[in-house]
Amino acid sequence: MTEISTDIVNNTIIKRPNNSHKGTFGRVGIIGGTNNFGGAIIMASKACVYSGAGLTTTFTDPVNLSSLHTHIPEAMFVDFNNLDSIKAMLNGFDVVLIGPGLGTDENSLTILKTVFNNIQPTQKLIIDGSAITLIANHNLDLPDAKLIFTPHQMEWQRLSGIKISDQTDENNQKAVKKLNATVVVKSHHTKVYHSDDIWTNPGGTPAQATGGMGDTLAGMVAGFVAQFSDTTNAVLSAVYAHSAIADKLAENQYVVLPTQIIEHIPEFMKANEKKTES
Amino acid sequence: MTEISTDIVNNTIIKRPNNSHKGTFGRVGIIGGTNNFGGAIIMASKACVYSGAGLTTTFTDPVNLSSLHTHIPEAMFVDFNNLDSIKAMLNGFDVVLIGPGLGTDENSLTILKTVFNNIQPTQKLIIDGSAITLIANHNLDLPDAKLIFTPHQMEWQRLSGIKISDQTDENNQKAVKKLNATVVVKSHHTKVYHSDDIWTNPGGTPAQATGGMGDTLAGMVAGFVAQFSDTTNAVLSAVYAHSAIADKLAENQYVVLPTQIIEHIPEFMKANEKKTES
Amino acid sequence: MTEISTDIVNNTIIKRPNNSHKGTFGRVGIIGGTNNFGGAIIMASKACVYSGAGLTTTFTDPVNLSSLHTHIPEAMFVDFNNLDSIKAMLNGFDVVLIGPGLGTDENSLTILKTVFNNIQPTQKLIIDGSAITLIANHNLDLPDAKLIFTPHQMEWQRLSGIKISDQTDENNQKAVKKLNATVVVKSHHTKVYHSDDIWTNPGGTPAQATGGMGDTLAGMVAGFVAQFSDTTNAVLSAVYAHSAIADKLAENQYVVLPTQIIEHIPEFMKANEKKTES
Amino acid sequence: MTEISTDIVNNTIIKRPNNSHKGTFGRVGIIGGTNNFGGAIIMASKACVYSGAGLTTTFTDPVNLSSLHTHIPEAMFVDFNNLDSIKAMLNGFDVVLIGPGLGTDENSLTILKTVFNNIQPTQKLIIDGSAITLIANHNLDLPDAKLIFTPHQMEWQRLSGIKISDQTDENNQKAVKKLNATVVVKSHHTKVYHSDDIWTNPGGTPAQATGGMGDTLAGMVAGFVAQFSDTTNAVLSAVYAHSAIADKLAENQYVVLPTQIIEHIPEFMKANEKKTES
Repeated sequence: MTEISTDIVNNTIIKRPNNSHKGTFGRVGIIGGTNNFGGAIIMASKACVYSGAGLTTTFTDPVNLSSLHTHIPEAMFVDFNNLDSIKAMLNGFDVVLIGPGLGTDENSLTILKTVFNNIQPTQKLIIDGSAITLIANHNLDLPDAKLIFTPHQMEWQRLSGIKISDQTDENNQKAVKKLNATVVVKSHHTKVYHSDDIWTNPGGTPAQATGGMGDTLAGMVAGFVAQFSDTTNAVLSAVYAHSAIADKLAENQYVVLPTQIIEHIPEFMKANEKKTES
Repeated sequence: MTEISTDIVNNTIIKRPNNSHKGTFGRVGIIGGTNNFGGAIIMASKACVYSGAGLTTTFTDPVNLSSLHTHIPEAMFVDFNNLDSIKAMLNGFDVVLIGPGLGTDENSLTILKTVFNNIQPTQKLIIDGSAITLIANHNLDLPDAKLIFTPHQMEWQRLSGIKISDQTDENNQKAVKKLNATVVVKSHHTKVYHSDDIWTNPGGTPAQATGGMGDTLAGMVAGFVAQFSDTTNAVLSAVYAHSAIADKLAENQYVVLPTQIIEHIPEFMKANEKKTES
Repeated sequence: MTEISTDIVNNTIIKRPNNSHKGTFGRVGIIGGTNNFGGAIIMASKACVYSGAGLTTTFTDPVNLSSLHTHIPEAMFVDFNNLDSIKAMLNGFDVVLIGPGLGTDENSLTILKTVFNNIQPTQKLIIDGSAITLIANHNLDLPDAKLIFTPHQMEWQRLSGIKISDQTDENNQKAVKKLNATVVVKSHHTKVYHSDDIWTNPGGTPAQATGGMGDTLAGMVAGFVAQFSDTTNAVLSAVYAHSAIADKLAENQYVVLPTQIIEHIPEFMKANEKKTES
Repeated sequence: MTEISTDIVNNTIIKRPNNSHKGTFGRVGIIGGTNNFGGAIIMASKACVYSGAGLTTTFTDPVNLSSLHTHIPEAMFVDFNNLDSIKAMLNGFDVVLIGPGLGTDENSLTILKTVFNNIQPTQKLIIDGSAITLIANHNLDLPDAKLIFTPHQMEWQRLSGIKISDQTDENNQKAVKKLNATVVVKSHHTKVYHSDDIWTNPGGTPAQATGGMGDTLAGMVAGFVAQFSDTTNAVLSAVYAHSAIADKLAENQYVVLPTQIIEHIPEFMKANEKKTES
């Protein structure tokens, strides 16, 4: 087991090439946010944009349109009930994130299945929150894509069948290999599993234990993966950045809000940017 | 009569345990905000989240959804007209706050009764604003729960039958004992009554005399009670923090807005955190 | 003609009495904001609240509800198409402001007439923007109330019949006496007329020449008049504060936005508060 | 080819005359923002207002009303589906900007044609984003007006027929002369073409390569052109300011958000204001 080091982060966040445009930094589709959980998709989308993704499109319930654009006019909007739009647009994204505030009802399931049926093997698919629960509840087959899961411990129990008390590295690693995925198991010391490798996140504070923290991390993972070619290092760097920003804010705050973390991403990334051109 | 001291506050706001998660800091349901008083439920919800509650769910009129999520995407939303949702979800909360902007019409009454009929004895129920008026107007029986009231002096008159000019400690205490509740009587020097004990709040400024101040306090009380095991000390600390933040802001402001107080809660709590691990 | 002096301002913004509550600082009703001009009523309402009015209720088109509460959850909302609500609530206000973004169509006229027919002689009525145009266009009789008008020069031409080029102090004063009102004629050096007195505002910057500036001033006038007993001095102090804040911001900004002025009202008022208790 | 110099900028941003009003600084109509691209019209409108335009009216889909007014209550709103309103109001504007988030469907085309059929030769018309694509797709005749185009390289390919790899100054200049327009071709080193002159923008950072950056520039161009009499210099100054602000922010941020640039426009313009009265 390795601790995620600042070295990984500093080597991942490369200096942006001068001759670049929005497409250089990735197109991301983010899907979630029912009537009840609109805040989740707002935070995930905002975290993705503030992480530097080139173009972010948010698929959500139309009731969330106004608050989405208030927070993040930089994101485009699509009604997630329009399955034809999902099908038509899905393969235009480098990265798809599904799950923040997606819910677990029939409609949520239909949306998830539409994504699973249309995603391509070359695309990166991040599966978070209620999407993980839906897979477990309905025993869904996983699609052929570059999969990243971001469960908290209970969602990981649902997905892997391993009870929280039994979630040892050994047990987790076996389950991860079967999934053929990168898995971020969120807890007060988050771990990242990929094939034979296990990383542990050195940071994290109990000040982060508040609603929306996971949605924010999922959005950061999407933004980092969209930009940086080594997917595993991108995931590790997002995990590290998320808690490093929180740790800093927690020096002066009893609780750290997800939206506060988001606003500090651009300056954290600059401060931890690779010093030489890639 | 005792003055609320910084000692009480510093001993209440314990250092958060490292091995914790959202559930550790309480699940809160906040109910209110009709078409006309949506701002009240927004301020109460935001105050609760910024006080550090683990998970906050807001039950309100759907017209308030966009502005709620704009202010506080960290809160979840439920349509408060959906009584089945209230019934189904109510017992999942450690703390329920009802009243900010709830209004006093037939629909408001139905919602209040639904809460009263379904709350459990182990749950903490904070009753604020128009919910207090509804109890008085309709002579409602109080439910068996851990009750906290946060009336201003006129609401206290309605609830207790004691005219403002007769609201002496002795008279108030008798009424409080009959209610078997903790009662916060808000005025320019707020008092807190619980059983044989009476506390007076040393702080408070006329700069706070503006709409929404009470809704904000109610949300803070909910957030503090959700996290700290001694309910009375949690209430006292919320009352103290609310006016201490306002006093500080009033050094440079003629009027202090409720939303400004809210934004300073996390740093106030950090500065007044217990120095040793609990 | 007198220049508005800091002396007037400093003697008007009294130290708030300790034993006070929201009612001490006035109840204000603000009416305006059609579908097309929602921003105007938002800025007027926000300016009123940030000026320290005790309780602010905004009567506007329901399409403006979300953005109103996003900006200023401290204000209450009423659908301005509900004439029965206007009638029922109107006499509960110390100050009524009508006009920001009210528009000039049939519906706007109906609302204005409802206010004129129900206002009482003891109430302060501030008439701004399109409400002034409506009076002129429809030759409306003015109600018996304490009237304050806040026209820009073209609106003043419509109301008084005096062409802009003929708006000398002498001509203006005659018209003002006939109206039996306080009149603020807004220009790059705003003048205030009341009975035999004329004041000129020393401040003001071309950086203020942008949409919404007048709506903001109207809201400030409402807030000041709600709190300070000498109505003329309250008007003068609001006019002075509005441009003094703008002048300060214009030292570093090419254009000063109305919403930026609003955010600085509480600290301007504190800095210019009367030093001795009133 | 000339580099845009600070001299051009400093001589363009004249000291505002004291005797001025909103009309002095131009009336701007901004048209765009479908259901899916509401953020674009919000950013363009906000950029225009923060650049100092006197009065800004936004024509967009009604679903964008709340988020528009949340961001920029200073702008007025008109439903862009109401073609009669467009026709009735269009000639009241000094500058019209069409395109940000306009989309390319049948309705978007109808709106664009309505503008083209009603614009007058003396009016300045800025054509951006999807409006450029619509012209190319439908081979539309250009109206007789003072035309400014703000395409990115792919939109320029569509409009001019010149492939990105062939977009040399010589080829571009020929196409620009045929259009009889000022053309801003956006890339990591944006160029501006007008008649025989070509300018290159010295600034710009890869931190700007994120969605909404072009919408923001279009809004700034509208705001500058509305205020400054030499249209070409106004365009050049807007282009320069946009990237100069971004370059400054990029010293501490890995990505620079369009909305962050907007908030710094007023102070950039003040710092680069002409030192002597014009």
